[in-house]
Amino acid sequence: MVSTIGLARALALAACMAGLALPTLAQTPAQAEVAHYVLDNGLEIVVIPDHRAPIVTHMLWYKIGSADEPPGKSGIAHFFEHLMFKGTKAHPAGEFSKVVSDVGGTENAFTANDYTAYFQMVPPDALATMMRFEADRMRGLVLSEDVIDAERDVVLEERRSRIDSSPRALLQEEVAATLYQNHPYRIPVIGWLHEMEQLNRRDAVAFYDRYYAPNNALLVVAGDVEPADVLAMAQQTYRLVPPTPDLPPRLRPSEPEHDTARTVTLHDPRVGVPAFSTSWVVPTYNSAAPGEAEALDLLAEILGGGIRSRLYQQVVVKTGIGAAAGAAYDSGAYDPSGFTVYGVPQGNATLAAVEAAVTDQIAMLIRDGVTPAELESAKTRFVRSLVFARDQQSDMANLYGRELSTGGSVEDIAQWPDRIRAVTAEQVQAVARRYLDPSVAVTGYLLPPAVQGQ
Amino acid sequence: MVSTIGLARALALAACMAGLALPTLAQTPAQAEVAHYVLDNGLEIVVIPDHRAPIVTHMLWYKIGSADEPPGKSGIAHFFEHLMFKGTKAHPAGEFSKVVSDVGGTENAFTANDYTAYFQMVPPDALATMMRFEADRMRGLVLSEDVIDAERDVVLEERRSRIDSSPRALLQEEVAATLYQNHPYRIPVIGWLHEMEQLNRRDAVAFYDRYYAPNNALLVVAGDVEPADVLAMAQQTYRLVPPTPDLPPRLRPSEPEHDTARTVTLHDPRVGVPAFSTSWVVPTYNSAAPGEAEALDLLAEILGGGIRSRLYQQVVVKTGIGAAAGAAYDSGAYDPSGFTVYGVPQGNATLAAVEAAVTDQIAMLIRDGVTPAELESAKTRFVRSLVFARDQQSDMANLYGRELSTGGSVEDIAQWPDRIRAVTAEQVQAVARRYLDPSVAVTGYLLPPAVQGQ
Repeated sequence: MVSTIGLARALALAACMAGLALPTLAQTPAQAEVAHYVLDNGLEIVVIPDHRAPIVTHMLWYKIGSADEPPGKSGIAHFFEHLMFKGTKAHPAGEFSKVVSDVGGTENAFTANDYTAYFQMVPPDALATMMRFEADRMRGLVLSEDVIDAERDVVLEERRSRIDSSPRALLQEEVAATLYQNHPYRIPVIGWLHEMEQLNRRDAVAFYDRYYAPNNALLVVAGDVEPADVLAMAQQTYRLVPPTPDLPPRLRPSEPEHDTARTVTLHDPRVGVPAFSTSWVVPTYNSAAPGEAEALDLLAEILGGGIRSRLYQQVVVKTGIGAAAGAAYDSGAYDPSGFTVYGVPQGNATLAAVEAAVTDQIAMLIRDGVTPAELESAKTRFVRSLVFARDQQSDMANLYGRELSTGGSVEDIAQWPDRIRAVTAEQVQAVARRYLDPSVAVTGYLLPPAVQGQ
Repeated sequence: MVSTIGLARALALAACMAGLALPTLAQTPAQAEVAHYVLDNGLEIVVIPDHRAPIVTHMLWYKIGSADEPPGKSGIAHFFEHLMFKGTKAHPAGEFSKVVSDVGGTENAFTANDYTAYFQMVPPDALATMMRFEADRMRGLVLSEDVIDAERDVVLEERRSRIDSSPRALLQEEVAATLYQNHPYRIPVIGWLHEMEQLNRRDAVAFYDRYYAPNNALLVVAGDVEPADVLAMAQQTYRLVPPTPDLPPRLRPSEPEHDTARTVTLHDPRVGVPAFSTSWVVPTYNSAAPGEAEALDLLAEILGGGIRSRLYQQVVVKTGIGAAAGAAYDSGAYDPSGFTVYGVPQGNATLAAVEAAVTDQIAMLIRDGVTPAELESAKTRFVRSLVFARDQQSDMANLYGRELSTGGSVEDIAQWPDRIRAVTAEQVQAVARRYLDPSVAVTGYLLPPAVQGQ
């Protein structure tokens, strides 16, 4: 089973913004139509009617991600994503996937820091069947030693191919492990190799019993369905699953004040073109002071969100020293998370020159602020990206799933455009000044092998 | 109550080696006289007869340190060291201290990564009384909200005065938080400020109930006493304390493979003279392959253990560019721990020049190894430091307490000199090559404020 791992929101937003045709807005579902329920066993349900095509996206989100793992058990959340395809008491491994395939559907799953999600896209008349299978594996998995041992090898191989064979991924891991001094976002989603090797049946059973339960889950259904029908189907399937009695509160150790500037350097013979990234831990929507996350979203957009941004224009277009430059902000993370700028040199330009150009742009923005015109333009682009996300049914389901599994609400999504529009230039400058402080930045360098003596 | 915090072994060894007169060896206690018992409630007892003066050192060690704290509860081990002086059901706060003082004794306590210890030095006829008080507070503390709130303010003030007011201490904190990507040695012993502020009565009671018990403790008595008498006293006092039924195994998350070189930089207006330190995580006696910890101990001695060492001779004496240079290795830590080299410039020399000189010395040692003469000299100095530790009664009690609370045994102490003497020059070179790899080093820089634009 293929899994997607990563900073899900940043990637998803990037995907939303890349290459989509302008949707016919009148055809996209209106906010008011979104239905929200909670079953008496604690399962949260969101239904987003979308009648443009006879298809439905069925996603089950668990509010458990790698940042919720017990100490020393890194990788178990993602390991579980794999185990969920291994068969239950009622249905042997492969049966669920075969049913999805037989109706012409597709399925997948992904694990991130804050959640684990399972989804199928199928014709509407297969929805009840999807719910039956998904509800069955919420509590009915067969976790034998054989299953655990075989799947552990699979995730270890996934780690080798995705992380250990990639200097960029290895550097990213150690940048995260450096950026966060205390919070579990420092631990890789896929897990540390030496801890993955030790994951066992007892760990798996304990994790499953505690976290895979309706009171820790969110059902998102988007598509050619009516909310009342979805609710009725959920009551005949998910409602039969008992809640877990010992669900712990979602409390993670938080960051201390950062006082130092730090660097992380990887020299590797596989590196052709060098690169750098500089990161800070900043608030996100779930815990930021009013307006701060919105201002940071626009700061990322103005500074480095695509080809209109200052970094791209200055580093790539005007001076031509960079092959790439930009910014990213994981504003939807449950806890304070990374704000990152990055650059890659072009031709004979040095990495140091690109880094200096990026640093200069930040210093200039902190000193002089942003112009009304670029603020307006950034707001328009940002709000349009939110609208674009509604064009593709799976993106829309993703948007609601992420929001509601990281402390947000249906109302937060509805109000997001207005909250973005309300941000002032002063607010953008203020968050840049407050958070993009070079004296507490963490900078990663991806470099070819050092010359002798270095 | 004053507490000592830190890399206890390194500091204690340094203390042992500094300024002590050569002991008359015939007067120090022979290894064979050391008695070792275990009571049926799990309490381990070590008695080291030392009849040179009519005094006895009574130390109670708990095998619980800051690295054993629950996630998000940093500082609670040290907080408890304070709470232990706050009075029990049987004896109000201050009574124990008054009794110690009335017999002309002294007392203190300290918390480290791997243990928390309480000790008194008193005349031998007060030993039974010390045991009675110490056993009483093992389980009898009164942990009221008032006591918790008042003492939390005391440890917060201790943090402010020891850490937050010291650029060097702040840098050290973030170097440790960077060096360890996964292991709890990255968390400061005194605690992160924001977590200390949240420590509450419930945390304290849970910690006390679980960890303060005879099956998690070690009694060390050194002095003018007979082992049989000490055992009899312990049976009348400590033996009455029931063991805790739910003592968890001492398992901590361990380090992943390190792949990157990292730096940690603090610019601070309070810094007059700059300094740097470079650290690696290396094995320690408790888990190293045979001979590796011994070789690392000698490597630290040869490279930077005092004025005879290569770093001191080259950086301070010959070139005169350094005011200080040396190495330290925390070989007694329960888990793999830091090996550190450091340097401070002198006069007009730059920090970069000092760092380069230190780096060169390491590269040279890795390339050419160590000479038979300097290995012999280092062995002699190291073994002598172990002998010196027996001169002072409290140092001797410390040595046994540290060893037995970090996975070692009485026999390990006895065999230590011979194991050091067996190390070959090839072994020293091999551990230097294997562990002092610049591509995975973590370097901290303590610097005055950056000039504008930097």
